[in-house]
Amino acid sequence: MNISFRHLLSADQVTQEDIQAICKKASFFHHNTSSSIFDLARGKILASLFFEPSTRTRFAFEAAMQKLGGNIITLESGASSSTKKGETLSDTGRIMSGYCDIAVIRHPQKNSATEFAKHATIPVINAGDGSNQHPSQSLLDIYTINHFHHRLDELSIGIIGDLKFSRTVKSLVQLLAFYKRHTFYLISHPSLKMNTETVAWLKKCGHQVIETKSLQDTLPLLDIAYMTRVQEERFDTKESYDAVKNHYRLERAHLTHAKPTLTILHPLPRIAEIAEDVDTHTSAKYFDQAQFGLYIRMALISEMLGLEI
Amino acid sequence: MNISFRHLLSADQVTQEDIQAICKKASFFHHNTSSSIFDLARGKILASLFFEPSTRTRFAFEAAMQKLGGNIITLESGASSSTKKGETLSDTGRIMSGYCDIAVIRHPQKNSATEFAKHATIPVINAGDGSNQHPSQSLLDIYTINHFHHRLDELSIGIIGDLKFSRTVKSLVQLLAFYKRHTFYLISHPSLKMNTETVAWLKKCGHQVIETKSLQDTLPLLDIAYMTRVQEERFDTKESYDAVKNHYRLERAHLTHAKPTLTILHPLPRIAEIAEDVDTHTSAKYFDQAQFGLYIRMALISEMLGLEI
Amino acid sequence: MNISFRHLLSADQVTQEDIQAICKKASFFHHNTSSSIFDLARGKILASLFFEPSTRTRFAFEAAMQKLGGNIITLESGASSSTKKGETLSDTGRIMSGYCDIAVIRHPQKNSATEFAKHATIPVINAGDGSNQHPSQSLLDIYTINHFHHRLDELSIGIIGDLKFSRTVKSLVQLLAFYKRHTFYLISHPSLKMNTETVAWLKKCGHQVIETKSLQDTLPLLDIAYMTRVQEERFDTKESYDAVKNHYRLERAHLTHAKPTLTILHPLPRIAEIAEDVDTHTSAKYFDQAQFGLYIRMALISEMLGLEI
Repeated sequence: MNISFRHLLSADQVTQEDIQAICKKASFFHHNTSSSIFDLARGKILASLFFEPSTRTRFAFEAAMQKLGGNIITLESGASSSTKKGETLSDTGRIMSGYCDIAVIRHPQKNSATEFAKHATIPVINAGDGSNQHPSQSLLDIYTINHFHHRLDELSIGIIGDLKFSRTVKSLVQLLAFYKRHTFYLISHPSLKMNTETVAWLKKCGHQVIETKSLQDTLPLLDIAYMTRVQEERFDTKESYDAVKNHYRLERAHLTHAKPTLTILHPLPRIAEIAEDVDTHTSAKYFDQAQFGLYIRMALISEMLGLEI
Repeated sequence: MNISFRHLLSADQVTQEDIQAICKKASFFHHNTSSSIFDLARGKILASLFFEPSTRTRFAFEAAMQKLGGNIITLESGASSSTKKGETLSDTGRIMSGYCDIAVIRHPQKNSATEFAKHATIPVINAGDGSNQHPSQSLLDIYTINHFHHRLDELSIGIIGDLKFSRTVKSLVQLLAFYKRHTFYLISHPSLKMNTETVAWLKKCGHQVIETKSLQDTLPLLDIAYMTRVQEERFDTKESYDAVKNHYRLERAHLTHAKPTLTILHPLPRIAEIAEDVDTHTSAKYFDQAQFGLYIRMALISEMLGLEI
Repeated sequence: MNISFRHLLSADQVTQEDIQAICKKASFFHHNTSSSIFDLARGKILASLFFEPSTRTRFAFEAAMQKLGGNIITLESGASSSTKKGETLSDTGRIMSGYCDIAVIRHPQKNSATEFAKHATIPVINAGDGSNQHPSQSLLDIYTINHFHHRLDELSIGIIGDLKFSRTVKSLVQLLAFYKRHTFYLISHPSLKMNTETVAWLKKCGHQVIETKSLQDTLPLLDIAYMTRVQEERFDTKESYDAVKNHYRLERAHLTHAKPTLTILHPLPRIAEIAEDVDTHTSAKYFDQAQFGLYIRMALISEMLGLEI
């Protein structure tokens, strides 16, 4: 095992060495199409526990396990769960340890994955606990950036949309902060700004942080435009959501003055944040990014199970 | 690959040569029980996406993929889908292409499978888009007819029940029309008659078409009695459904004057259309028909993935 | 095949010889971690049909099949089933026989599994039909008792909680009754007492039966304390449930005078019946019990499929 953690619950746990090890392994799966990898996880079972719906993340983990030759057991919808009968997540985690070899959990409650892992004797991956953490997403973001820019230092990174609730943004900046001399352009509606502690911490890490409201003025400066969806489920009222949901929308016309090496990323699903006419632009890399999620999950699973290639 | 289509979205796409190639491959899987077929689709993943419930069709596709040695990822219920977050089906199709090798989709909306396939880079099978198309069902119907009658020409085919909304009927007559000199007995309540364009087209193709209301008078003339379920979900009001739902019901006593070679088919599930006492009659072939669906799906998947036997 | 039944629908069918054969096979899977078992069920498919939610039981069966090298097809939630369209369970069972090699069914209705198996040509396992039967649970209970006590005779067995509705208790006492000279301590609220026929029958089988209300007084006498959850879904009103739900709660302090060889069992999920501070006590064996369920299901599936080790 080349990684420092047993469970992957938060981006906080991930070291720079972990990122290197996981991206190296992901790159191997990305470029190796020999059928020998189909036997790596033979006889192993992944419990894929989604107490909150997410087809994309669930499918990425389940495809990854199966591409490694392993099997999956799925909870598609929390509605049909023992926890509905009142079982604690910690009990569920312990019981799953008797049936499976590794577990992935998404749950609407903050720290749910940590609770699940409390007595688990198998590795646990947090695939989203409310607005808190979603560390495998950040690892695939990092992998994608490195793939297209061939470096993880000195980048001009625009983060656009929901910088307040988005767990994706939270985890991503934590990992990017390891590297040197970034310029972060934080582009959001005033009600969705990044919290001041994180901004201060990024500066303390030696990065430049520029907060702005204008996407179009900033776009020509960026190496990376990381778009996010404003998630209705994080708002208290429909009114407060409606007020900001379509505040930023990237259209092809905006890209006229962008750098030729700009990469546009998005954790997906996208709704109106990126117009469809952007999809065919050479800078549009969000579908590649989604696909790279498969290799990152293959890397994570094989590292956490201690599989030897 | 011996077939003319990349995606199977509609029976319109299927040529007579396609039918021949698929039925030949299905027959191979029907009669070959050697374990060597268990490795054909090794390392491949089928995305089984059911936005509308259907245990039978879903299980047939998932069993088929697994009998070929492949893996499956399942969306059992659209309720837990990214599309609930507002993602377009076209985006979903593109993202799934990054994780899986082939996709099957059922969705209540007309043309949903076509939309899903729009940017998909993997083969897509339409397993039912509302009342529109369900082409793999028709292929298994054709296979079943050929299996029991040893020909696909000059048959007396009764189609009974819902000739208006049933996608099964729509696709079936399209495929049967390729062959020669059939007599179609269209037996339905006036409110569920086949649309006049289809009737005219069948005649133009050289077939005889007889529209009638009486199942019992017609039964002795038939080689095939294709029963259909009147589907509540296709009606606007419960009243309009109740008025016709039990209009045709096949009972064992009706079969006294039937040809000994009659085959009774039904796409299933059946409710009251066929009495249980018919099940043990030698003409009852609807459970065989359901099972043959497994072989047709194995044939389709292996052809569309380009697997070599 | 070393077992007397084709379908496992009720603990009634299970003979003492069956128990011996299944426990022997389970013990083999418990202690054999060689990878050769991963090929036993190659190419076989288990239909896992849950018309009533149960993550734990479903996962145990699905993990068992996959640990044997077989595949699974899952119905996670009855909501998405053909039976919603009005299909009989008997039709569903017949159709599944065409796709799969073995089926597990949980359904809220009494005798649903029997109805499903009526025309099924594949082996069927009842994983719970309402408050009626859940025979694989009892087999794993027996296996657990034998594992920790090295005998199945002359045990002091406390059964605590819901002795009226619990299908687990019903099936367990049926199997324990085969053996000799047990003392059953039936500990329950008066409204949840075991029915008098069963009590009379246990006595007729040569066992001692003592009905009591006090858990604490009885605890020091027990070899086994079998705790059960009072299941809200079995009560007509919330009031009648609330009146008894927390009547028995085992805490660590209660265990001071218990035998050192006491084993505390629970079919899980537990809610408040066992305090968390009991979990680390050496007598707490309910998580082992859950894990042993995997081996029992592997044994059942391999016996019922006639797999040769």
